[in-house]
Parts: sequence; structure tokens; C-alpha cells
Amino acid sequence: VAAAALTAWSSRFAAMPIDETRDRAPAVRPDPRRVLDDLAELRNLTATPRGADRLAWTEGWARARAFLAERLAEIGVESERDEAGNVWATVDGVDRDMVAVGSHLDAVPEGGWLDGALGVFAGLELLRAVAASGRPPRRRLALIDFADEEGARFGRSLLGSSAVAGRLDPSRVADLRDAAGVRLEDALAGHGIDLDRAPSASARARGLTAYLELHIEQGPILEAEGVSVAAVRGAMGISRHRWTITGRTGHAGSTPAALRRDPMVAAAQAIVGLRALASGDEERATVGQIEAVPGIPTAIPERVEFTVDLRHESAVELARLEREFADVVRRAAEQQGCASGAEEIFAVSPTRFDPRLLELAGEVCAAHAGRRLEVVSGPGHDAVELAHVVPAAMLFAPSIGGVSHSREEDTAAADLTIAIAAFFDFALAVLEAFDNLPIDR
Amino acid sequence: VAAAALTAWSSRFAAMPIDETRDRAPAVRPDPRRVLDDLAELRNLTATPRGADRLAWTEGWARARAFLAERLAEIGVESERDEAGNVWATVDGVDRDMVAVGSHLDAVPEGGWLDGALGVFAGLELLRAVAASGRPPRRRLALIDFADEEGARFGRSLLGSSAVAGRLDPSRVADLRDAAGVRLEDALAGHGIDLDRAPSASARARGLTAYLELHIEQGPILEAEGVSVAAVRGAMGISRHRWTITGRTGHAGSTPAALRRDPMVAAAQAIVGLRALASGDEERATVGQIEAVPGIPTAIPERVEFTVDLRHESAVELARLEREFADVVRRAAEQQGCASGAEEIFAVSPTRFDPRLLELAGEVCAAHAGRRLEVVSGPGHDAVELAHVVPAAMLFAPSIGGVSHSREEDTAAADLTIAIAAFFDFALAVLEAFDNLPIDR
Repeated sequence: VAAAALTAWSSRFAAMPIDETRDRAPAVRPDPRRVLDDLAELRNLTATPRGADRLAWTEGWARARAFLAERLAEIGVESERDEAGNVWATVDGVDRDMVAVGSHLDAVPEGGWLDGALGVFAGLELLRAVAASGRPPRRRLALIDFADEEGARFGRSLLGSSAVAGRLDPSRVADLRDAAGVRLEDALAGHGIDLDRAPSASARARGLTAYLELHIEQGPILEAEGVSVAAVRGAMGISRHRWTITGRTGHAGSTPAALRRDPMVAAAQAIVGLRALASGDEERATVGQIEAVPGIPTAIPERVEFTVDLRHESAVELARLEREFADVVRRAAEQQGCASGAEEIFAVSPTRFDPRLLELAGEVCAAHAGRRLEVVSGPGHDAVELAHVVPAAMLFAPSIGGVSHSREEDTAAADLTIAIAAFFDFALAVLEAFDNLPIDR
Repeated sequence: VAAAALTAWSSRFAAMPIDETRDRAPAVRPDPRRVLDDLAELRNLTATPRGADRLAWTEGWARARAFLAERLAEIGVESERDEAGNVWATVDGVDRDMVAVGSHLDAVPEGGWLDGALGVFAGLELLRAVAASGRPPRRRLALIDFADEEGARFGRSLLGSSAVAGRLDPSRVADLRDAAGVRLEDALAGHGIDLDRAPSASARARGLTAYLELHIEQGPILEAEGVSVAAVRGAMGISRHRWTITGRTGHAGSTPAALRRDPMVAAAQAIVGLRALASGDEERATVGQIEAVPGIPTAIPERVEFTVDLRHESAVELARLEREFADVVRRAAEQQGCASGAEEIFAVSPTRFDPRLLELAGEVCAAHAGRRLEVVSGPGHDAVELAHVVPAAMLFAPSIGGVSHSREEDTAAADLTIAIAAFFDFALAVLEAFDNLPIDR
């Protein structure tokens, strides 16, 4: 965005305090308690002893979506499914342009109760409050429940939102298989989705003025900072590789250190070196998977394979980190008489959310949390996909202990209440008062 | 052994040069070339594209044993199987006491051609030469083909030799299962072995004056030293543990280094520290197996488990190594905010071979190799089990690249020839000339 445009908007918004924004709106009074009630009901509906059962393209997920459909029917709002399986529920506005809020109802297996569901049911309460107000908002309001955000069954995350963003290539995902060997294309067909037509969902993005999402942080920063809600500046870029260090196997008993070419020692040196390279708050470096081959206690491994997931908000810094780690591995491998190589598994560039929406989000969060904190998302989100084609923004609620993707995932009710209330103010401001938000890229 | 007894024997043997020793023997002329021929034939008989097929208690192993039985029949030597499945082939001597030579015909899956087979067919050639000499040797000579030395199918190595040594407890191994779920006891029954009666094989140890074994080193030391045959001083003690470092899982993208409790970093630090502790020629330290749980590229592991195999010739030093490594793990875990713990998998004390036999073996090897090298075995061997109840000794032939347990296992023919010839001289000296070898413990 041009600096001039940003300044023009900023000063315009600064002259319009949040209370005044709400005065211009109809008597829309969304209530965070109703969001917590819906979330608790969904939790009971999809609970197993080991966590929530809402894996995409399964019965548990269908049950969660049926619950959402019931709630929408109760408030007289109709919903429809787009070609990629995303559910859209819309309330008409005075103008034709549309503000969307949402997230996803699918979860990882044995997942938590808030991941995705928080954003969907916060959005539902917004629709409910708008519908209850008895008069149309300035802009149309849509709630989107994106399909298969987690990608936990077929390994392809952000399926529905990438279709809306025009970034889904069916030929690259059709043949992905789940653990039981079922093809992604067939699983979708079983839920009435023709994968080849999924990219048509991108037509809906053209009508969007903004996309806003409330999500749990899935990390420990807000908790550590003591902040109940924070604006998200963007998403880190990701560089993910599988590294292989190859040495020479041998009997554990017969080879002294000096005559070994031990890839385990080289891998350990590389991992220690990686932590030294990436010890700051700006970057993320994770070795989540490691295997020694042949993997028997009485043999020096022939080779060690491990994944390295690097993330940074800056593409330049991410590339630097990648380069410096490659040097670390090379040196460690050479020192142990081993060879090394890497295969790219996944790569995505950093994403910045719309700076005008971010500015507004930051002010709203500061008003509710008592302190303005801006964070960068390490995980990907539907909003990150949408940001490629629509001005998008996110708010984060804290995660206790930074835990997510497990039944231990939780957020204090007081924090949830504050974060939901902040999201309501933010969304209503964008829905009613926020002018001049061109798609800027 | 008392120093005085050793000195008495040493000076006695020193006064009796090897040639004189052989002059006292009958015209026994074992030929290393016949050993290489037999080994080549066994290799062809049990070859697969990926290595030798001689896994204990399988068809391939039975085929190898049938080949040995054929060769024994050709020279008119009968063999019998003891209660543990070991094959004994005996030639009578003038005296009642017995010198045994041998090793094992079983191999790891896709194994090499020399491991075990070298010692068995060197022993066969000795029997053949003694039988061909037309007159009995001074002592009885037995060739033993031990059953299931590798333990590769059920995870219990040295099965047959531990029975002879009186160290096999059937109740502790009966229920071991192979990868297909077959019980050890049932597999043995399929080969006509009643596991409960296996300990009776220990009666045979009482008749033994000495047990001698030629084996490949399975390590790189002889090659590095340029020596074709070396005497083995004993076997290292082994301390094998599974370590677990437990941290806190979290999303790879959302947790900065300072807020992580990352067990992978702690494990890497521990492994780097282990190499620093055990970088000398005296000790062995190997991490052959490692696993991160849950083991997904986008999550900080909840815990990392890895095996640590420590070996040393000295029990005191082994215990020190174990203690110092435990400190290294504890410090690394604490530094990363993790907990650590270990479970013992396996432990065995160091073994020293009979010092009088070692002295003789050292002199014979020096005569054949041009240089006297004494090594310690890291791997266990049948001779190490026998050493608990019988004066035992081993000679090592070099292994190219230190490789074993694979089809790449090999030894230069010139080295094999020298090592086999040395073993013949050594065994004939013990068979014919070596007096006063009491069981000394």
C-alpha cells in the first residue's frame, strides 16, 4: 500500500473513535457468552475421551457442520456450500459489498475445542446479533466455515480457503491418500464435492471487501505477554526440508570413534547448531521428525534423516537462515566424514495482512486488552490464504501453555470473552464504518 | 590366574618354538585354500541378491548345516546335535580331554559370507587334516557349530553357546517372538529342539580343555593397523539404555526458542556430549536408534527417545562412562527445560580370555602377521560365552572397511589365508603340545 493512502486512512479512522463507530451502527449487540455456550455445546457434541472428533470429510465433521446449520436455521439465515465445500451464510446489507468473517470447523484427530471453532461461532454470534437488530447493516455480512483447513487426513491444509483464493490445483491433490488408502478426490465426492469444480469457488472472493478471522494463537506469546487479544501482522514464510546425512554403518562394538563416519553425531551437531542460529524471537526452527537407518541399537547408522522447519516473517531473513543452516549441516557432516543433502518438502512466502485493517485491529485490541501487541502467525490460517486476494486481518486469543492440536488446548474464559468482544468491535467497525478499502496489490 | 602360574607357563612355552610344537604333532597339514573353497561353496549355496540367507531356525540355515554335515560325512566324521541345537563333530585323541574349535553358521538376514562361517570351516579343515593324518591327535578335537549366535530372529543372541556355558534360562526366552509373531520356543520345536532341555547342553562344557575360535573382526582396527591376524584379549562390557527426554510439544510455527522445552535440542546436545566423552580408542558409544514423538515435521516433539550403547574393556571405566553420560543428559535436559530418564535394555560385564592361551595366540599371530597386535572385541561371540566356563581364546581376521552384517562384508584372500594358517598353528599347538591348562576361576 502506498504510504500516502495509509496515512490518509489512518488519520480518518483516528478521528472516529470506536464508540462513535458503534453509534453509527444499528443496535447490534453480539454477546460473547453466547459464543462460549455454542462452543461448549459443540465440544459435547464431538467429544471423545482423547479429544474432539471433527476431522474433515468424516462423520464427526459433518455432525459439527449440522450443528452450525441448525443454529443458522434458528436465526433464519440461510447457508449454501460453494464448489470447494466451504459453507457461506449471508445477511444482506444496504450496499452490495461484503465483509466476511469465519474460520473452520474441522480439526486434527483428537483435537481441541477452540481451534477453528472459535472463529466460526464468533462469526455466528455476529450474524445472530445483526439478524436480531431488525435492520440491515451497511455492508453484507458473510460467515464462512472453510472446508479442511487442517489437512490432517490427506496432508493438504487450507483446502477450502485456497480454492476461494484461486490457489488450488485439483490435479496436485486429487491422488493424495489418507492412512486407509482413500483418495482425496473420492473422499470429497463422498461429501458431494466435485474436486475438478472446486476452483470455481474463487469467484466468491471477487465480491469480498474484507475477510476477518478470530483464532487462538496456538502459541505461548500472548500468555507470556499477559495480553487477552492481539492483532496479527501477517504470517511467517516457511521453508521445510528433509535432510539426509549419510555415513558408514558398522557394529557398535567394533569401531572406535576415530574410525567412524557417524551420521548421528553429525545430525546432533547440526541440530545443536540450528538452535544457536535460530534462538531469537523472530525466527522458528524445528526438528520434529528424525530417523536413523537401519535404526538398530547395536549399529552405527548408515544414515540419519530429519526434517527442518524454518519460519520467518521476512523472506530475506528466511533465505539467510536456510543458507546458514545448510552451511552448519555441511560442516558437521564433513567433520564426521559424512555426506549431506536436502530435499524441499514445502515452501511458502511470508504474508502481510492489509496494513489498514491491521491498524484498526491494533487499536481495537489495545482498547480491549489494555495494551497493544502485534504478533506474527507461525501457523498458516484461512485468513493467510484469503490475504492473497482480499484485504484480510486476524485477531489472536491466547492459548494456555501455547498448547493446541490436542484435548489440552484451552483458553481462560476471561481471555476468550475479551478476545471475542474485541473481534465484535473490529468486525462491526469494518462492517459499518470502514470506507475506502480497495484491493491493493 | 596367579602371576606365578602364568610366568611358569610362559617360560615353558617360550622354550618350545612353534616348529618344534608341530614336529611333535602327527603329519597334520591343514590347508587354508580348502577353507576358502568351502566358504565359496557355502556362499553360492545360500546367496540371495541382497546377501546370505542363513537366519537361524529357517530353511536357509538348515541348508548351510546340511552342507556342513555332507562335508563331515565325506571325511568319515560323525556329528551329533546337543540339547540346545549346537552341532558337535568329534575326532578321538590319545587322551580323554578335548579341545574344541568352532563358531556359528547362522547369519543376520541378508548377511555376509564370513561371519561365523569362517570359524566353522576353518575348524572343519582342521578335522579333515587330523582325520587324513591317519593317527589320533594327543587330545580329542571337537568342531562346534553353535546354534543362533546372532539372535537376529528373536532378539536373543548367543543362544546355543549360552546353553553350553550354563547361562541360558529357558523361561526368559521361550516367549520371545519374531516379526511374524512366532514364539522362540515353537520355532525351536519345529527344528526338533525342546527348549526346556536346552540347559542340559552345559554338561558338555565339563569335558572341554579349551575353546578356540577364529572370526572376522567386524571392525576396522586390523585393516587400519595393516595386520592380517590378531589375538583377542577379551570382550568389552556393554551397557545399553533407552533414554527418554520429555519436553513440551507445540506448533513449530508458534513457539519462539526462549519459550520452548524442546527435547530434540536436548537430545542433540546429549549426543554431541557423548561423542566428546567417548572419543578414544578404548571406549565405544553409539546412538543407533532415535525417535521423536509424535514425530511430525510441524510440531516440536513431546519427547525424544534414543538408545545408547556403551562398551569398555574395563568395568570401572564403563561405569564411569555411564555415570558421566547420565550427567551430560541431565544437564542438557535441564538447560532445555526438559526431564530425562533411562531404562536399561542390556548389560554384560567385560570378559577376559584365558591369559595363557592369549599369550600363545599372541606369539602365533606375531609369527604369521609380522607384528603382534592384541585387540578387544566389541561384539559378543560364542567364545565370550564359553570363556565363563572354559579357557577360551579368539583370533580375528580383518574386515574390509570394518563392514559386517551385510553382503558387502569381505576380507582380502591374502589376509584370510594368513589368518586361517595362524589359527591352524594355534589350534594344533593347543591340541598337541599345550600342557597344564586348568580351569582357572
